[in-house]
Amino acid sequence: MQTYNPPVGDYRILLEALGYDRVAQLKGHEDYDLETTMALIEQGGVFAKERMLPMNQIGDQKGLQFDPATGEVKTPKGFTALYKDFCAQGYPSLGHSTEFGGGGAPHTLAAPFNEFFCAANKSFTMASGLSFGLIEALEAHADDELKQRYLPKLISGEWTGTMCLTEPQCGTDLGLLTTKAVPDGDAYKLTGTKIWITFGEHDFTDNIIHLVLARLPDAPEGIKGISTFVVPKFTPDGKRNGIVCGGLEHKLGIHASPTCVMNMEDATGYLVGVPHKGMRAMFTMMNNARLMVGIEGFALADIAYQTSVAFCRDRRQGRSLNSERTEPNEKADNILVHPDVRRQLLNVRSTNEGMRALATWIAMQIDIAHKSDDEKEAGWANDLVSLMTPVIKGFCTERGFANISDAMQVMGGAGYTTDWCVEQYMRDERIAMIYEGTNHVQALDLVGRKLARKNGQLYRTFAKNVGVFLEKNEGRDDMKDIIGPFKEAVERLHEVTMAMGMRGIQDMEYGAAVASNYLTLFGLVAVGYAWCMVIAGIEGKAGAAYDTKRKLAKYYMEQILVERHAYDRLIEVGKDNMMAFADEEF
Amino acid sequence: MQTYNPPVGDYRILLEALGYDRVAQLKGHEDYDLETTMALIEQGGVFAKERMLPMNQIGDQKGLQFDPATGEVKTPKGFTALYKDFCAQGYPSLGHSTEFGGGGAPHTLAAPFNEFFCAANKSFTMASGLSFGLIEALEAHADDELKQRYLPKLISGEWTGTMCLTEPQCGTDLGLLTTKAVPDGDAYKLTGTKIWITFGEHDFTDNIIHLVLARLPDAPEGIKGISTFVVPKFTPDGKRNGIVCGGLEHKLGIHASPTCVMNMEDATGYLVGVPHKGMRAMFTMMNNARLMVGIEGFALADIAYQTSVAFCRDRRQGRSLNSERTEPNEKADNILVHPDVRRQLLNVRSTNEGMRALATWIAMQIDIAHKSDDEKEAGWANDLVSLMTPVIKGFCTERGFANISDAMQVMGGAGYTTDWCVEQYMRDERIAMIYEGTNHVQALDLVGRKLARKNGQLYRTFAKNVGVFLEKNEGRDDMKDIIGPFKEAVERLHEVTMAMGMRGIQDMEYGAAVASNYLTLFGLVAVGYAWCMVIAGIEGKAGAAYDTKRKLAKYYMEQILVERHAYDRLIEVGKDNMMAFADEEF
Repeated sequence: MQTYNPPVGDYRILLEALGYDRVAQLKGHEDYDLETTMALIEQGGVFAKERMLPMNQIGDQKGLQFDPATGEVKTPKGFTALYKDFCAQGYPSLGHSTEFGGGGAPHTLAAPFNEFFCAANKSFTMASGLSFGLIEALEAHADDELKQRYLPKLISGEWTGTMCLTEPQCGTDLGLLTTKAVPDGDAYKLTGTKIWITFGEHDFTDNIIHLVLARLPDAPEGIKGISTFVVPKFTPDGKRNGIVCGGLEHKLGIHASPTCVMNMEDATGYLVGVPHKGMRAMFTMMNNARLMVGIEGFALADIAYQTSVAFCRDRRQGRSLNSERTEPNEKADNILVHPDVRRQLLNVRSTNEGMRALATWIAMQIDIAHKSDDEKEAGWANDLVSLMTPVIKGFCTERGFANISDAMQVMGGAGYTTDWCVEQYMRDERIAMIYEGTNHVQALDLVGRKLARKNGQLYRTFAKNVGVFLEKNEGRDDMKDIIGPFKEAVERLHEVTMAMGMRGIQDMEYGAAVASNYLTLFGLVAVGYAWCMVIAGIEGKAGAAYDTKRKLAKYYMEQILVERHAYDRLIEVGKDNMMAFADEEF
Repeated sequence: MQTYNPPVGDYRILLEALGYDRVAQLKGHEDYDLETTMALIEQGGVFAKERMLPMNQIGDQKGLQFDPATGEVKTPKGFTALYKDFCAQGYPSLGHSTEFGGGGAPHTLAAPFNEFFCAANKSFTMASGLSFGLIEALEAHADDELKQRYLPKLISGEWTGTMCLTEPQCGTDLGLLTTKAVPDGDAYKLTGTKIWITFGEHDFTDNIIHLVLARLPDAPEGIKGISTFVVPKFTPDGKRNGIVCGGLEHKLGIHASPTCVMNMEDATGYLVGVPHKGMRAMFTMMNNARLMVGIEGFALADIAYQTSVAFCRDRRQGRSLNSERTEPNEKADNILVHPDVRRQLLNVRSTNEGMRALATWIAMQIDIAHKSDDEKEAGWANDLVSLMTPVIKGFCTERGFANISDAMQVMGGAGYTTDWCVEQYMRDERIAMIYEGTNHVQALDLVGRKLARKNGQLYRTFAKNVGVFLEKNEGRDDMKDIIGPFKEAVERLHEVTMAMGMRGIQDMEYGAAVASNYLTLFGLVAVGYAWCMVIAGIEGKAGAAYDTKRKLAKYYMEQILVERHAYDRLIEVGKDNMMAFADEEF
């Protein structure tokens, strides 16, 4: 039994509370005032619920068919038709530049769309998710001819794209990659094997465009010798190119999303950007892609929460310990009377909604960073995006996975069966902690790169942003239960960040040892900040939805933010107890 | 790729350090001195690795076949032969009383056996696991005729047993059960539907004996009107009884373990014990069963850990941040150089081994409680068993699941594929948090029943036990890194327990609201205590295995025990923020 109501109303609250009016004023967003945007969000919710969700469990259970003779992949029955509908609605193109046929919509919209689509059918959604990265890379780095040839059809969804980075011997460490590209006239011939290629082969479209990292013959060793190429399944002359799917991975989840081994033998490719500078093209698109993966975290956790609540509403077991809540005419009380059922559900809900607020706020900052005429405002927004991207990716995927497990726990044995699909959400979610840079890679990005950048400017921007907020709001009597615990937490975060930075300068291994715990601590505080901004933003608003928000914010501060007290100690403890073991002791 | 070395050597360390010599001295254990016991443990490890493990992934992937026409269930090919071998080795009978053909082995042995067997093939192991509970119930409560009829064949494994408790409308709240039993001569006729019946139907044996909870016609309402019956698949006259499998659940994991709907229509049953006192028979066997489920937690987490380490040993990515550890002749360093890889592996390892120590210690206390002639010693042991059983079940299953997820994370994408089986371990493990009483039921048992019993005597026994230990060992210089943090934690646990008890007396809903967090806090401290006892017990021992133990104990105190700082705050906060929400707000 699948049950899902896309949280359209929550997005309205968030867009209003977190300042969507500023995004709507940006140049190019003339057609996207709040009401237009909300109408689009609502349509997206309907499509997710009515078209995508009914195919979700079917996709999981039927899976994919691979033909080793041809290298072709068949998606589950109905998925191709769903993809055509998806394109007909304009979803692939909505957020892309109007120059090549896109809708020019604010990036902010990507948050609700990605959330609804992933919740309703994550496997399916991954097809267009990967195209997004390729489109960004081409827009930023390709020459005009490549742009004209590929962007319109990628943006319309007529073709899809992939990202071919990983090889058997290199994942996190891309410097080890060995795929070769040899010049051949205006083009190149590529040979090598790529793995983990999402939608590397499928039957949605009649062409697939691969973005491939490879080495030119004169490439320096390591990460500084990587170039980027476009390698289409069919070359412009209509010939089948030498890039073929060699097999599919068998995975815990996302069963309807083909994870391909892609073999290249003298495949024709076209250089994107400058030789040996391919990693630059990659970094361009990482922020957005990582934000989107973070959103997957609470997307699946929300549908799991909703399913769990639907189960609870029909389930009676035991009696309330509070005689006033007992229903004597029933043989047992509804399980929502039990404090621990509430505790588990509210742990999930208060973090899910807080993470959604954080991601939405940062999605808006992406728009401001890209399009604000005010250089200071744009720079400030850019700092926040850069700093928060690894936090959102790491924290939301880890917490999202834990939340689905909690939502399952409330349901008892029913949650463990396939009947309610929560077990599928758990399986589908788990990969988000691994792909698009493992969560520890996010932590290293945060500690080793983002904190260090421009002598700590990114963190200072965040601290200033918080400072301005506190100055404005901390006197408010109605927010003291919320701002009080947050302020204490953020001040502690400042101290921990400073101390860790000092120690990390002298000892990079220490920084790496504590990075993951630091990311979690930062995530707890950042989500707390998002809650504070939301509550400040709905000041004076009356109604049940707003009252629930205020209770959830208080709940978050009291029941979730306190987890920080474990993490700050771990950051102090450091690395010695880890490094004391010889390799052979493991 | 499955890789598993049963931790036989670790059990030797634990048996020596935690006082197996006392267990070997108990009456009836004359044939089980340390060396004999270790030889048995070693054989169990060989059987697990060589016979059970090769069938594990096959079982997961082939699953079960159900014939709706006959209600028969076919287990995966090879499982029946494996079961015959398993019985031929004497494993089902080893721990049971010699009176009915058992081996009379100490209960202590159940810990390593259950660990190895679950790690190697959890689905398969569940068949005999359920018989165990039935055998205990019959030994304690059945009349001689029933004992003679059923115990020898159940103990030998010629037949298997089930526990039929849950019905569609009642799981946690057994008072709601409606299955009826009507007197019929010396026997009864039972009618009703039971769900979640593990190995309710299968093809291992030619008879299956069900222990069924049902109501007699004159039964009082609720939990005080439940009686216990034995309902065999084939009655003594060889006729097929009216208890038939109506279907199998489709589940996240344990795919080779049939989870059956069992329909009874005038099924012949025999009363076990006293009418309306059936719950007493259930409680008899709960401690052991729950301890065994707790062991599942670290069993699967250990095989996941070993798999993850095997992966790491072959994987090179990136460079050590410590130039002394770099291997310049290789293109990259082994990933065991990275602090975060170590951190994740050691989080898993230090908790797994600590949980194993705790469970082994409590398994020994079961032997002492059952067989010591010294009433005070037996009572003391019994208190510890009663108190720790819910802690072990709840903490070890929750932590075990998290540990498998961490072990997967270290492996990156490889961990998400079926190639390494870690994803199967995660799926198979997850149910342990739910069955045999959900983890919150354990928490309520701990807080509402065990702490309250005899005015807190159980907790006082634990506190005294710790006090005696500290008095003897806290002066030891070589243990101050270990005992110091533990002592602080246990003193805080004493305070929290006292404060929670005082508050819970006036407000039971408060107790229920904090119970799960209290169980986690208690688990963290209890595992810390187990580590302390192990390190004290290996005093003066030299060798690599002992040195690793000492480092792991220190690691546990510094990196894991600190999590307590979140939980004690949550217990203070209490219930108000949970109960503030109206039902319709969820």
